[in-house]
Amino acid sequence: MVNENQHTCSASSSSKSDGGSSSGSESSKESSRCSTPVLDAERHERLREKMRRRQDSGDKWFSLEFFPPRTASGAVNLISRFDRMGAGGPLFIDVTWHPAGDPGSDKETSSMIIASTAVNYCGLETILHMTCCNQTKDEITGHLQKAKRLGLKNIMALRGDPVGEEWQEEVEGFNYAVDLVKHIRNEFDDYFDICVAGYPKGHPEAENYEADQRHLKEKVLAGADFIITQLFFRSETFLKFMKDCQAIGITCPIVPGIFPIQGYHSLRQLVRLSKLEVPQEIKDVIEPIKDNDAAIRNYGVELAVSMCRELLDSGMVHGLHFYTLNREVATIEVLKRLGMWKEDPRRPLPWAVSAHPKRRVEDVRPIFWSSRPKSYIYRTQEWDDFPNGRWGNSSSPAFGELKDYYLFYLKSKSPREELLKMWGEELTSEESVFEVFTCYITGEPNKNGHRVTCMPWNDDPLATETNLLKEQLEKVNRRGILTINSQPNINGKPSTDPIVGWGPSGGYVFQKAYLEFFTSSEIVTALLKALKKYETRVNYHIVNVKGQNITNAPELQPNAVTWGIFPGREIIQPTVVDPVSFLFWKDEAFALWIEQWAKLYEEESPSRMIIQYIHDNYYLVNLVDNDFPLENCLWQVVDDTFKLLNSPKEQ
Amino acid sequence: MVNENQHTCSASSSSKSDGGSSSGSESSKESSRCSTPVLDAERHERLREKMRRRQDSGDKWFSLEFFPPRTASGAVNLISRFDRMGAGGPLFIDVTWHPAGDPGSDKETSSMIIASTAVNYCGLETILHMTCCNQTKDEITGHLQKAKRLGLKNIMALRGDPVGEEWQEEVEGFNYAVDLVKHIRNEFDDYFDICVAGYPKGHPEAENYEADQRHLKEKVLAGADFIITQLFFRSETFLKFMKDCQAIGITCPIVPGIFPIQGYHSLRQLVRLSKLEVPQEIKDVIEPIKDNDAAIRNYGVELAVSMCRELLDSGMVHGLHFYTLNREVATIEVLKRLGMWKEDPRRPLPWAVSAHPKRRVEDVRPIFWSSRPKSYIYRTQEWDDFPNGRWGNSSSPAFGELKDYYLFYLKSKSPREELLKMWGEELTSEESVFEVFTCYITGEPNKNGHRVTCMPWNDDPLATETNLLKEQLEKVNRRGILTINSQPNINGKPSTDPIVGWGPSGGYVFQKAYLEFFTSSEIVTALLKALKKYETRVNYHIVNVKGQNITNAPELQPNAVTWGIFPGREIIQPTVVDPVSFLFWKDEAFALWIEQWAKLYEEESPSRMIIQYIHDNYYLVNLVDNDFPLENCLWQVVDDTFKLLNSPKEQ
Repeated sequence: MVNENQHTCSASSSSKSDGGSSSGSESSKESSRCSTPVLDAERHERLREKMRRRQDSGDKWFSLEFFPPRTASGAVNLISRFDRMGAGGPLFIDVTWHPAGDPGSDKETSSMIIASTAVNYCGLETILHMTCCNQTKDEITGHLQKAKRLGLKNIMALRGDPVGEEWQEEVEGFNYAVDLVKHIRNEFDDYFDICVAGYPKGHPEAENYEADQRHLKEKVLAGADFIITQLFFRSETFLKFMKDCQAIGITCPIVPGIFPIQGYHSLRQLVRLSKLEVPQEIKDVIEPIKDNDAAIRNYGVELAVSMCRELLDSGMVHGLHFYTLNREVATIEVLKRLGMWKEDPRRPLPWAVSAHPKRRVEDVRPIFWSSRPKSYIYRTQEWDDFPNGRWGNSSSPAFGELKDYYLFYLKSKSPREELLKMWGEELTSEESVFEVFTCYITGEPNKNGHRVTCMPWNDDPLATETNLLKEQLEKVNRRGILTINSQPNINGKPSTDPIVGWGPSGGYVFQKAYLEFFTSSEIVTALLKALKKYETRVNYHIVNVKGQNITNAPELQPNAVTWGIFPGREIIQPTVVDPVSFLFWKDEAFALWIEQWAKLYEEESPSRMIIQYIHDNYYLVNLVDNDFPLENCLWQVVDDTFKLLNSPKEQ
Repeated sequence: MVNENQHTCSASSSSKSDGGSSSGSESSKESSRCSTPVLDAERHERLREKMRRRQDSGDKWFSLEFFPPRTASGAVNLISRFDRMGAGGPLFIDVTWHPAGDPGSDKETSSMIIASTAVNYCGLETILHMTCCNQTKDEITGHLQKAKRLGLKNIMALRGDPVGEEWQEEVEGFNYAVDLVKHIRNEFDDYFDICVAGYPKGHPEAENYEADQRHLKEKVLAGADFIITQLFFRSETFLKFMKDCQAIGITCPIVPGIFPIQGYHSLRQLVRLSKLEVPQEIKDVIEPIKDNDAAIRNYGVELAVSMCRELLDSGMVHGLHFYTLNREVATIEVLKRLGMWKEDPRRPLPWAVSAHPKRRVEDVRPIFWSSRPKSYIYRTQEWDDFPNGRWGNSSSPAFGELKDYYLFYLKSKSPREELLKMWGEELTSEESVFEVFTCYITGEPNKNGHRVTCMPWNDDPLATETNLLKEQLEKVNRRGILTINSQPNINGKPSTDPIVGWGPSGGYVFQKAYLEFFTSSEIVTALLKALKKYETRVNYHIVNVKGQNITNAPELQPNAVTWGIFPGREIIQPTVVDPVSFLFWKDEAFALWIEQWAKLYEEESPSRMIIQYIHDNYYLVNLVDNDFPLENCLWQVVDDTFKLLNSPKEQ
């Protein structure tokens, strides 16, 4: 019951009591400048501070290690995995450095780009591994500069594997991880948080365990912030190592590396690389079941869970680092059994927050990109800053061009054949397009028996929140109101609500009902007539691909459609319908018809011409019901529209 | 039913459709920069634009003329009158220029300072009169520069009265109002809106009516934006004048000057000065009742109402200008009878908005000054700008010192004797101070039979909204929780609510419950204990005069306590509890004990020592209940506090 927040606001009060009446301005200037509401303290902390805070509060954490994929489609899959595993609440993820894979390049499979994607597009605190042997100082500095530019803030400094069998020291070169640690601190001061590797059994190439301990201490003295260990098979191994480290004065956090055994071959390979010996009791269990993957994985999970429990129970371990081997099942299972997997991840904002340092203050986005957050981040990546968390600074450039639809994190996860199965091998009319939209909403298979699990505007199945509107959405899509985005109205639900909640606890969240769709000009004409009855209750923007734009929005002001009220904070309004950015979104939304859908078909084919016709002639419409405490009137608006269409023609 | 807001967003759409895909940034940059929610279009318009818009929309308006007072206490009264008459919704007020009264000086009774007060502190669109004869160009330029600096944007350009009986033209000098109009346009370009005088019967000194009409046209051609006429007694007089003006090509607005006859002597004096003749039918009514002020005023109201009706019914008149003679009753009566007095003035924000151009974007203030808005404006007048409507720009200075407690618009409206009657000729204990607070809340007379209608922190009787909390406030004040500011919680009332509503219609307003009070350190100790149960639900700041500050507020973030959600707009949060400015308010709030109360008594007197004791030892406390949708828990907090005080001492 003790209120831990209670503190004396000493800076300000002392400046006041010293200074007498009321001129003291320096301190207040500084503090009153901080006017952007900060939702999540972690967004402003460095990794080592987060780690320290979690340790102080007794809040156990975990982290996940991945290696870069070999192929572009592997990269797309890995990024989806980042999103899914990120939802479980890792403190950070790390991406290994593969010298053979051109790790610092701009290839979509490079370590650098994968790590940067994790930070920028998946919003994950990320450590980029970096090895130093066989590289020049300039090459390494180049990599580090690039990492910094891309928003990476943490480096795992490693030596790397020798080229040949035997280790050859290079004069003038980087021979040990400690050289890299020193180099980073020399060249980049305190910019990066640095992690180094620890070997619970000693590095296989070290003279002995004690010598390896000394090397580790050197790395820490050179500026490393924390240690992640190599895998091990028994908790005693780690706990002894930890005590030994403490005994020689290593005080930084030491994180045990956990390797849940997931299969016979991966274990053998890892053991070979790490030169570790598998304990006999484990071999005894595994050998008999070596061809039964499921059995081995179950055993591996059991083993990992009990080892992790021992580590956590020791009181010396505050976080666990998992070697995932880019797989999900085993690691998630272990974390769930330990109760460390966040079942209900608290979202700091209603949309996925980027972890790039310059986007720290971002706290408002247009609703249009809500299903394509990566595209939004991509198109705003050149913005110099987010004053008050938004566009608006006159020196900021506008939206970037969406020039490359095949940019790997923007394109569909599904291959062409699958898209054709979902969206139709052959379209015969506009109605067959309506059918595709309807199937996506209902989740029912289409007439060829395929479920439509994604659309050009939505790479994932319907959001839980949108499910609340399913029945109505189905009805309107069938009739040619092709919805691509919607949200129900919310009048003050707790911020902890599992479906619509976001932000710190103790708050209340609100939404205005929103509906966005493509539709024909005939329906638009009736809609405009129907809308007259609603006056300012409903705001609308209606635009076609040529930019013809009809709206009743006052001037060019944004309309807040999601906001939250929290204890002791300013109001936060993270989502708006912004008339200016709607015209940029319009270009993207219309282009997706062609780039993702029409191009599946042969040129001049009827299917392609149908999509092209829709692209050229339909309107993109958004509607907001401003009266959020009342029942959502947007369905009534659509009903009225259809009634007008059905009624005998008036003058 | 026609939605008049519907328009084509041509600027952006054309730039988009021309520019092709999506680089077009110039236009969007410009428009997306406008990110501060604009509550009231009028706040950004010049007077002539407001006039034009009202005319176009058929929305009739009125304006009020005042003259500067002779004494400082007259100034205090006039400013209260500005507040009261400003509530009726005048389009503007104007302040006359009295060459004999040092009109451009810094005296609190000068035309310049009275007009500046109306703009800055009362939030009224204001025209400052200015005469030009017998002054040098430099003097006049100096006045205009000062007016601009003080936030005045409109000038009524007049010649002024001659020094002697006869008019003597000065070579090189300003001889006519037209010279002043030209000078303003030469020196200040289009900065000021300029008004000139029209004479429905011709200027008494003009050769003839036609010549006077030509002079008027010259003034308009020289740059005048509109005309206000001299008073007249028959609507035909004005309507003929207006037609004559139109006939010679005067197209700017012409506003009739209305003079409701309020008394026999004032009428005679005005007639003498204006050299007008009172029609016989009026004389016939007045002469017999010349000693009955009430009867004359009633007649004057009748006469004015019927004349105004004729003017408005003509379709040629869109606004009425009233010569108030600094009195309220007759003018308000006429306006009420015409249905032009705003009974329920829509507040653009919950606090009084300043009309100074640089405060246009101001849209958030700390709650602490809510009963002393003029003090807040005074103390922030040096701020260069209000980025996002608030403090926060690093180049802005902090709060100005409240160095002169006797600044005329900050001091109490009541004289010392009256204050002593209300607050006690002689205080005997802290309890007698509690009694004063309690009487202020209840409205009951004190034991000497005097009602307490103001307090050092509240110059007016209890606000209607605070009345909602009266019963509870009475209870706690009796026991030494000396409240100076409070608001109930509001969970989404319509923005048109007569008591708590503000902002455009169609919106919803919200509040967190707030309570601010002085109390003893004994009560603070119990309060802190009681507050533990409420954790983050209740935020508190507790500070004494020395600046000892106890709070559970997260960092130094402001807590929004008033906000509104409106159709097609961003969220507006006009009132916050800001921890930084609370420390500036603290100085002011504590100083008022001494400056306004203690100093009423002799030095060393027991009464004075009691107030001094409270000043030195009490704490200033503010409490916010963050759970606005639930029942206000602050009374429970106070109850718990008293229970703890009453319970037998614990360890």
